[in-house]
Amino acid sequence: MTLVQLDNYGPWTVTPEPRREADLQSLQARLFADVSRQVGASGGYVFHSRFDNMIAVTNGLDGEDHAAIQRAVRNQYPVTVSLGVAASETPAAALELASERLQQAGSAQDRDRKEALAGDTLDAETRTPEDVTVAHFDIDDFTSRYTDEVDAFDAHMSVITAYATLMRYLYRECDALSFFVGGDNIVSICPSIEATNYQDAIEHVTAETGIQLKVGIGRGRTAHEAGMSAKHALEECRTNGTRIEQDLATAHGD
Amino acid sequence: MTLVQLDNYGPWTVTPEPRREADLQSLQARLFADVSRQVGASGGYVFHSRFDNMIAVTNGLDGEDHAAIQRAVRNQYPVTVSLGVAASETPAAALELASERLQQAGSAQDRDRKEALAGDTLDAETRTPEDVTVAHFDIDDFTSRYTDEVDAFDAHMSVITAYATLMRYLYRECDALSFFVGGDNIVSICPSIEATNYQDAIEHVTAETGIQLKVGIGRGRTAHEAGMSAKHALEECRTNGTRIEQDLATAHGD
Amino acid sequence: MTLVQLDNYGPWTVTPEPRREADLQSLQARLFADVSRQVGASGGYVFHSRFDNMIAVTNGLDGEDHAAIQRAVRNQYPVTVSLGVAASETPAAALELASERLQQAGSAQDRDRKEALAGDTLDAETRTPEDVTVAHFDIDDFTSRYTDEVDAFDAHMSVITAYATLMRYLYRECDALSFFVGGDNIVSICPSIEATNYQDAIEHVTAETGIQLKVGIGRGRTAHEAGMSAKHALEECRTNGTRIEQDLATAHGD
Amino acid sequence: MTLVQLDNYGPWTVTPEPRREADLQSLQARLFADVSRQVGASGGYVFHSRFDNMIAVTNGLDGEDHAAIQRAVRNQYPVTVSLGVAASETPAAALELASERLQQAGSAQDRDRKEALAGDTLDAETRTPEDVTVAHFDIDDFTSRYTDEVDAFDAHMSVITAYATLMRYLYRECDALSFFVGGDNIVSICPSIEATNYQDAIEHVTAETGIQLKVGIGRGRTAHEAGMSAKHALEECRTNGTRIEQDLATAHGD
Repeated sequence: MTLVQLDNYGPWTVTPEPRREADLQSLQARLFADVSRQVGASGGYVFHSRFDNMIAVTNGLDGEDHAAIQRAVRNQYPVTVSLGVAASETPAAALELASERLQQAGSAQDRDRKEALAGDTLDAETRTPEDVTVAHFDIDDFTSRYTDEVDAFDAHMSVITAYATLMRYLYRECDALSFFVGGDNIVSICPSIEATNYQDAIEHVTAETGIQLKVGIGRGRTAHEAGMSAKHALEECRTNGTRIEQDLATAHGD
Repeated sequence: MTLVQLDNYGPWTVTPEPRREADLQSLQARLFADVSRQVGASGGYVFHSRFDNMIAVTNGLDGEDHAAIQRAVRNQYPVTVSLGVAASETPAAALELASERLQQAGSAQDRDRKEALAGDTLDAETRTPEDVTVAHFDIDDFTSRYTDEVDAFDAHMSVITAYATLMRYLYRECDALSFFVGGDNIVSICPSIEATNYQDAIEHVTAETGIQLKVGIGRGRTAHEAGMSAKHALEECRTNGTRIEQDLATAHGD
Repeated sequence: MTLVQLDNYGPWTVTPEPRREADLQSLQARLFADVSRQVGASGGYVFHSRFDNMIAVTNGLDGEDHAAIQRAVRNQYPVTVSLGVAASETPAAALELASERLQQAGSAQDRDRKEALAGDTLDAETRTPEDVTVAHFDIDDFTSRYTDEVDAFDAHMSVITAYATLMRYLYRECDALSFFVGGDNIVSICPSIEATNYQDAIEHVTAETGIQLKVGIGRGRTAHEAGMSAKHALEECRTNGTRIEQDLATAHGD
Repeated sequence: MTLVQLDNYGPWTVTPEPRREADLQSLQARLFADVSRQVGASGGYVFHSRFDNMIAVTNGLDGEDHAAIQRAVRNQYPVTVSLGVAASETPAAALELASERLQQAGSAQDRDRKEALAGDTLDAETRTPEDVTVAHFDIDDFTSRYTDEVDAFDAHMSVITAYATLMRYLYRECDALSFFVGGDNIVSICPSIEATNYQDAIEHVTAETGIQLKVGIGRGRTAHEAGMSAKHALEECRTNGTRIEQDLATAHGD
């Protein structure tokens, strides 16, 4: 996992006086879009998280790829990024370690910490074809039940509430990291867990919020491989009317 | 308020087979960034919401400005957008009406609904210098207490949980629409409400989550004017060590 | 006319050591794309020219619009821009004056000149519906004669040579400013000149290079209005098999 | 070399009626910026050429990288691209072959030719550390003699004229492909030629136009490696007051 943290961004947004919100929104979104394409080119995923702190699954990226992200931001944006990198048994443990490494390099609002690159990537030989597990959730019939039926903020609240509930559950129970990725889609980066864990998670969300999720699960050498398998598995749910499908085939193309 | 809805986007993302997640993330973020700059140029705000359904405060934009958004998307992206537009006494009521108008024009996944533009903008003469109220919340000492202390997902969960709690409270109690805008910042589009409402909201979030918010409140003819006042008021909170500040001065520049 | 000049850009590209060419190309193109959309939103045109010096037709933009361009660049890019603005009888004279004004504000490589804004925009009341004349040239049957027939660099050289020849002729003879805008298209910002001038220009290019151009001419209050008329006139050339058409109708929509 | 050709773009720009020029300019520039970053990530260079036909040096990119360019465009833009790929003894011969291959796949305005990928990339084992030669030219003291002295169109014409003259000379005499890359910079992709060839080219441009160029020359396994060496060599020209420098050191970092 890699933590991508903008350097001293908070102060920048209000110096010399508060910058226009529309400009900040645009800057954050473009920067995320660029990092997403760059990480994605090597098979990684990046999630916007808080935008000034993005969280990435970087299996398949080496130290040079990480430096290339810093360079691209430096050469295209008025801000710079520091990176904390780590691997561990679970996504949560890896991100915790990556966070610690970056914190040791200095505060997010330290003027002297700029473009820190803390931690190490995985050696190619230690990687396996099942390093990454992606669970791709969505909400049953969201368009017909929500988007076309209730008002846009109601739909927004339903998605956010389902997401927040699932996020906390999977983190607490499974050391998984879950992110809202738009529409009614939630992507979880999971350790190797059982199908019953997913079943329990879905039931927990329904019990707490009344919202019914389904999930496709995939594994792969990279987030992209695992994520593509998960997407295909989710299509299987749609086809079969099931709630949980695992894609056991070899990696799908793109 | 304007609801910006991508036309038939869900099916597009999986046709002929699922598209790469990194490409979708990039597309959604860029499209939002562009719409943000375009709406922002006329003093509006747009929030990414679910990315395929963006929610905008469009006081100051006329029908031609709305058509220009549709044209820009059509000329730059592989997707198109439909718009629902409405004004009302409260932000929530306006968005509800905007949603209804768009729903009447067809389903979000209707192949035949493309670039619908439903509803009307406000006449210039009915607008007033206090049409928009923006409340800009952030979390006390977030960098020193969270970003630099806990791991990045812990910080992420704290922000999302605080946001989800505030969002539901302000919607239920005040007909306000709240959006997470990155970092530890939440922006609420509010009707004209009392300072005690904000006080209650902050206390509710602390009681539910243990997280302490502060808020700057501003009013203006446009979201930008109100938002800039709110940002300055929030700076006052920082300077004065207070939790709630209202900016009563005339509109700030940019 | 407005001259958009990046501040101290040359030194930035090689400090602390030369930056990657691909990053510079990307930065320049994105910055141009953004300025183009921003200027275009008010009916203006901007041409990339040398990329670090862009040339814009800004009838319809006021001082605030110019400041907004500077602000947007500052908030999104690692560089800033200075602007020289002027109006005159001919495009060439206006740009000359705009250039002088900016030069008086400091050198393009002056470290202390940053975000200069020199000169004034046209008052709304002095503007007329025929302030801008756009001549839109293209090459006869370019795709079938060149793109599909000769190799890509041959085609490139033909276009550049035709452009360079037309550019110099129209500047020398008519005080017009001509820009290559992609494909086989050349856009000239012209003073009010006679059809015979265009005829002579086309014949000059054919005599010098063997390349046959046709041209659509439009007038309007803004570059966009004039340019749209010119595009429609050029379509008339295609329909009628003529070399020169003027669009005399009222402005076309977009 | 790779020829990147937009599919059926000309007709798209005028269907159902001519699209706004500012939107087209923005689209073309963004698409080029994206392709530039993507090709650049693997050490390649792409030149905008005519924007609807871009010319790339793709040593270091394999077939999958080429397919990734097509996929990224398809997923982000309203247009698609076809690619012709070839290697040969000289850049000109390679592009000629790449062009032929693409032409055989169909016309640039053939409705049925979409996302063609014609030709083959170099095998890794046949590549050498000196496959690419880049010559990076600029104009002596351009800022002090032109940008700060003459008006912006005069400066523009000087650069375009110098470029057009150099482009034709190096193509005719050396089978080299030259591109204007912004500012006063011209980048030539050259076969292995003698220093006297560069000397002759510079003298030819001075004789024809009065403009004095200098040049840094680099070699490498990729355009990026060769280009970085050329940039460092050009810095040597500046330091030493010389007109031609070759960088003989091993490849520079980025």
